[in-house]
Amino acid sequence: MSISDEFAFIKDIQPDRLFHAEKVVGIGDDAAIIGVEEGFEKIVCVDTMVEGVHFTRETMKPFDIGYKALAANISDVAAMGGYPLYYLVSITIPKSWTQEELKSIYDGMKSLGEQYEMDLIGGDTTSGKTMVLSVFVIGKVENSKRLLRSNARVGDVMFVSGTVGDAAGGLDILLHNKNADKFETLVESHQRPKPQVTLGRILSKFERVSLNDVSDGLASELLEIAEASQVDIFINKETIPISEDLQRYDADNALKWALTGGEDFELVGSIPETDWAKLEKECLIAGMKITKIGTVASGEGKAFIKSYNGAVQELKKEGYNHFNRG
Amino acid sequence: MSISDEFAFIKDIQPDRLFHAEKVVGIGDDAAIIGVEEGFEKIVCVDTMVEGVHFTRETMKPFDIGYKALAANISDVAAMGGYPLYYLVSITIPKSWTQEELKSIYDGMKSLGEQYEMDLIGGDTTSGKTMVLSVFVIGKVENSKRLLRSNARVGDVMFVSGTVGDAAGGLDILLHNKNADKFETLVESHQRPKPQVTLGRILSKFERVSLNDVSDGLASELLEIAEASQVDIFINKETIPISEDLQRYDADNALKWALTGGEDFELVGSIPETDWAKLEKECLIAGMKITKIGTVASGEGKAFIKSYNGAVQELKKEGYNHFNRG
Repeated sequence: MSISDEFAFIKDIQPDRLFHAEKVVGIGDDAAIIGVEEGFEKIVCVDTMVEGVHFTRETMKPFDIGYKALAANISDVAAMGGYPLYYLVSITIPKSWTQEELKSIYDGMKSLGEQYEMDLIGGDTTSGKTMVLSVFVIGKVENSKRLLRSNARVGDVMFVSGTVGDAAGGLDILLHNKNADKFETLVESHQRPKPQVTLGRILSKFERVSLNDVSDGLASELLEIAEASQVDIFINKETIPISEDLQRYDADNALKWALTGGEDFELVGSIPETDWAKLEKECLIAGMKITKIGTVASGEGKAFIKSYNGAVQELKKEGYNHFNRG
Repeated sequence: MSISDEFAFIKDIQPDRLFHAEKVVGIGDDAAIIGVEEGFEKIVCVDTMVEGVHFTRETMKPFDIGYKALAANISDVAAMGGYPLYYLVSITIPKSWTQEELKSIYDGMKSLGEQYEMDLIGGDTTSGKTMVLSVFVIGKVENSKRLLRSNARVGDVMFVSGTVGDAAGGLDILLHNKNADKFETLVESHQRPKPQVTLGRILSKFERVSLNDVSDGLASELLEIAEASQVDIFINKETIPISEDLQRYDADNALKWALTGGEDFELVGSIPETDWAKLEKECLIAGMKITKIGTVASGEGKAFIKSYNGAVQELKKEGYNHFNRG
């Protein structure tokens, strides 16, 4: 079935209830108006997924495309220590997509959005040759809580949440049709990544934290922090958290994927050494994995990886850079 | 020249100054944080332009593509009676576009944005087969000022600003390569439409106003107001403001373009009969054209056009519906 009417489609994807009904008016009007809470600042971000670049119909179901597009944005809000509140969706639709598939994309967003009580408050629907899905998220964070990349200081502990490289491993499985059923956790890491909002909230209670989400790969995120803070970062190869499944799937590529694979949506950052034990304990209580992977030294914006044998290698920005692909 | 580095490009389009420097942090971080002013609500909207659907390289220069994409969003803010403040840009770039052309797109946005002291505070850059430009705008409006489509009441005066149909006439000239130099105002209406922020601000001072911007054509906008307000709208054919240039260019199609052409970004709406004289006077003082085109009657959401000879015709939603095109 092809879409014969934009208006009918838009009606179809209208949310049937609002979590923040008292704060929103004008949905479906020229623009949405959102109320402003005292004591909070607004967080805004946008993330776009393009067919053939970020996904294909083989690697992602429509539901997952929607889920992941929203997840990437929620992850950006988490990396600022905030809560997500609202989202707007701009979708460019090729004729070959059925109305049912399009509905699934929105269902995927809805499914994740509901976990965070987020409201879909607007969007734009256009036709085009390639599916392009842009999601715009608005969140909030307490006044002056700013978990910026530029907050790293000499002596800080560098940490990362969860495990890294799983999403890249999952994509490899999907691209080469290898044992997808045996490595479901890796495939799920690629298709339905979990943004770390709870950890972001825990981190927002600390005095000073530098923070990034792992969207382009650990190496790239570390370099962004090092550059923004004008420090050097040293991480230890052996401490990088790599999952057993990823080791089992491809031990040779596991480290490479951990450093440059991206789309893990874990949080990476730094915290004063004096706060590390408290952070570790709070994560333990909340049931979240967090790992000390290195330290911050004086420098001018570089990042290095050290091996147990003492070898030191400089990390380059080899993250997910669309323009260098194919 | 093709783009070899996303990071370099992003650096190239970073704004060199901020109008709201004291209210924004984190530009270039995972997300931007914006301060919240007491007494105001936030307005959020998104508008997307797709190559081959909304423009081609023949009909629009890169500068104009950026200009128009931002203009469409500012127009949505104007239609809510607000001021635009910030914008975020998601751009999907095919390999065939040069870095110079891309820079021009951002220059076009910057040129218009500066007129309203707007800051570019974030975005996403992806590659893809078709150029897709999504712009998200955040504006503000005083608490409880809501110029919604649902505000029309029986007895109201229907009005429209400026002239309508010029943008469609301009597109016709560009598509058929006809006398572009003789009808520059029409071509400019298509390529660099002017959002009506000042008029929106004037309207926001009135007690009750229903309002839409003319993005999909007058007929479609009137129907949206009629439906949202559950009233019927009657307009008089002879009062629809059509420019002399459009009449001169194509008298036969002028009315059709005025009703269904769209992208004029004028404001159309209703106001109580008792406020009409005051509004007319304020527009006169501000040097803005506003025309009474009809009245609001009881009904269930239809719109009609009357001729001087008494003939009445129902208006249909024949606006710019991408999915019905080609």
